[in-house]
Amino acid sequence: MQLSKQNLKERVDQVYDAIVVGGGAGGLSAGIYLQRYLLSSLIIDKGKARSFWMQELHNYIGLPSDTPGRTLLRQGKEHYLSLEGDLLNGYVEEVVDEGETFAVRVKVGRQNSIYSVFRCKYLIAASGIIDYLPTLEKMQNVYEYAGYNLHVCLICDGYEMADKKVGVFGSSESNLGVAFSLGWFTPYITLFTQGLFEVSPKFRQQLQEHGYRLVEQPIKQFLGENHQMTGVELADGSVVELEAGLISMGSQYHASYLEGLNLERQGGNLVTDKMARTSHPRIFAIGDLKVGLNQVVVAAADGALAATQIWRDIRRATGAKRWLANLPIKSG
Amino acid sequence: MQLSKQNLKERVDQVYDAIVVGGGAGGLSAGIYLQRYLLSSLIIDKGKARSFWMQELHNYIGLPSDTPGRTLLRQGKEHYLSLEGDLLNGYVEEVVDEGETFAVRVKVGRQNSIYSVFRCKYLIAASGIIDYLPTLEKMQNVYEYAGYNLHVCLICDGYEMADKKVGVFGSSESNLGVAFSLGWFTPYITLFTQGLFEVSPKFRQQLQEHGYRLVEQPIKQFLGENHQMTGVELADGSVVELEAGLISMGSQYHASYLEGLNLERQGGNLVTDKMARTSHPRIFAIGDLKVGLNQVVVAAADGALAATQIWRDIRRATGAKRWLANLPIKSG
Repeated sequence: MQLSKQNLKERVDQVYDAIVVGGGAGGLSAGIYLQRYLLSSLIIDKGKARSFWMQELHNYIGLPSDTPGRTLLRQGKEHYLSLEGDLLNGYVEEVVDEGETFAVRVKVGRQNSIYSVFRCKYLIAASGIIDYLPTLEKMQNVYEYAGYNLHVCLICDGYEMADKKVGVFGSSESNLGVAFSLGWFTPYITLFTQGLFEVSPKFRQQLQEHGYRLVEQPIKQFLGENHQMTGVELADGSVVELEAGLISMGSQYHASYLEGLNLERQGGNLVTDKMARTSHPRIFAIGDLKVGLNQVVVAAADGALAATQIWRDIRRATGAKRWLANLPIKSG
Repeated sequence: MQLSKQNLKERVDQVYDAIVVGGGAGGLSAGIYLQRYLLSSLIIDKGKARSFWMQELHNYIGLPSDTPGRTLLRQGKEHYLSLEGDLLNGYVEEVVDEGETFAVRVKVGRQNSIYSVFRCKYLIAASGIIDYLPTLEKMQNVYEYAGYNLHVCLICDGYEMADKKVGVFGSSESNLGVAFSLGWFTPYITLFTQGLFEVSPKFRQQLQEHGYRLVEQPIKQFLGENHQMTGVELADGSVVELEAGLISMGSQYHASYLEGLNLERQGGNLVTDKMARTSHPRIFAIGDLKVGLNQVVVAAADGALAATQIWRDIRRATGAKRWLANLPIKSG
């Protein structure tokens, strides 16, 4: 059921089989599988998963290619609740390993917040990442286009940028390197440092060899209308016309609650095995938090894998039910 | 486009970037990703993927839990064709590794068959498995219930069997062992050897300890109506009442076309890396053919992974497009 400040006390004394941190595609998929394995689960969602911002999911089989990410999330949430899973809108501040259980400390409500502690045997970290966006004086100007034709994922939206004039917005030379992969889809590439960093002579040379343009002054604002970005106005008032954009400024990992747990990482990502288990035997990581491809369908599959492995662990520890009526009556 | 006997000649001279054998959830997902990477692809589908038989997909996030498997397949096929992928209904008889390319020999049409050879750089084996069903005199009696309440997948449908009287139909003692996992969901289990094999004293003992029943005579027919199986009539005319069934008789692997290629296997399944690549660098295996969990959402994710790795390989070999207008004009 949907938990809230009013009714969450009903659940603080129980130990869930699993708590899932994050209600995106991965977390909801995990929750659906957990409930169908007859395990008890709680999904704690801070809201606004990365897929929430996707205007059109172009590559998720089974859904028409203009389906918004939030439609998938709404469907998944209904599905999960119909299986009697618990769902709480809240922010996980800390997870403490108590040996047999985890204590999960949650802040509920942005105003007049209350704090609660829930307990579980297994934890699934599904809280994902969110992309850093260009920082402009009026951020509303960025939100106007982000997720429309100002993309954050080359894998997802390279196709949408084919043969278009594309601006690549980076925060370091290394993340601007995505331009050479984007160069598979289109040659008409202009890179923007936004005045944030210097570019090495070697990188500058590579760009020249490809005919890619480099703009090194700050951006004043994106231009366009009806969520379609048509160019950039620079600090000096000049305009660069574009037909699409690719933001490549790195990502914020929503996983500070895991800090005390000393999990194995590779770069910023959690290392997992084939069933999405981290280096801690009772903690799983799925979707964008883990090493691997950041795709909705991959996160959804990760959720199935993690839930299945948790079920196997618990099932093996518990053993199969016995058909009591067929057993010999034991004499006292 | 949809290829057929009439127009397939248009394609026999080209080399596809990838040919996908199998048009189930995994193959279609791979095809959608390949086309969105601007790669050329052909899906060759023999028809009737395992998911085609699924009456309700209960655990695929984004689709209502009563969505038939064939709805997902139809949606995926439309999606793929809208991206200008090629699709052919045919049966792949043989794949020959020619070094840079594969030659894929296809039989088209069950009657008045014609044979064609298509070529590709990469191959994705997505042709899956199909479950062996009990062999009765009237097979129509089995098809009447299979995929409804006569299940083939415990992971998928354990939930549907919770606390029900369930019959488990095996073809060997080892595949009857699924009963102890089913015992997580329900204790009311009757195992049927169908008279096909003997059970060891140890196994018999384990069943007795759990109170599970064992029926060792052949089955005459399934009983029921409106696709709901309500029991089994045995060879001697006696009836065992049931509320659901689980068939566990192994699977036929649709991969005879790979026989000459000496790929690494584990049991009957192909061994793959994290991107679904087999031991052959240009052959990928996805879905039920590979080692791992046989789930629709996993197959769909596998398709995304395989296509992405093929794109990376080809992109790195090809290099990025250059913006020619910005390059210095080379003097002859």
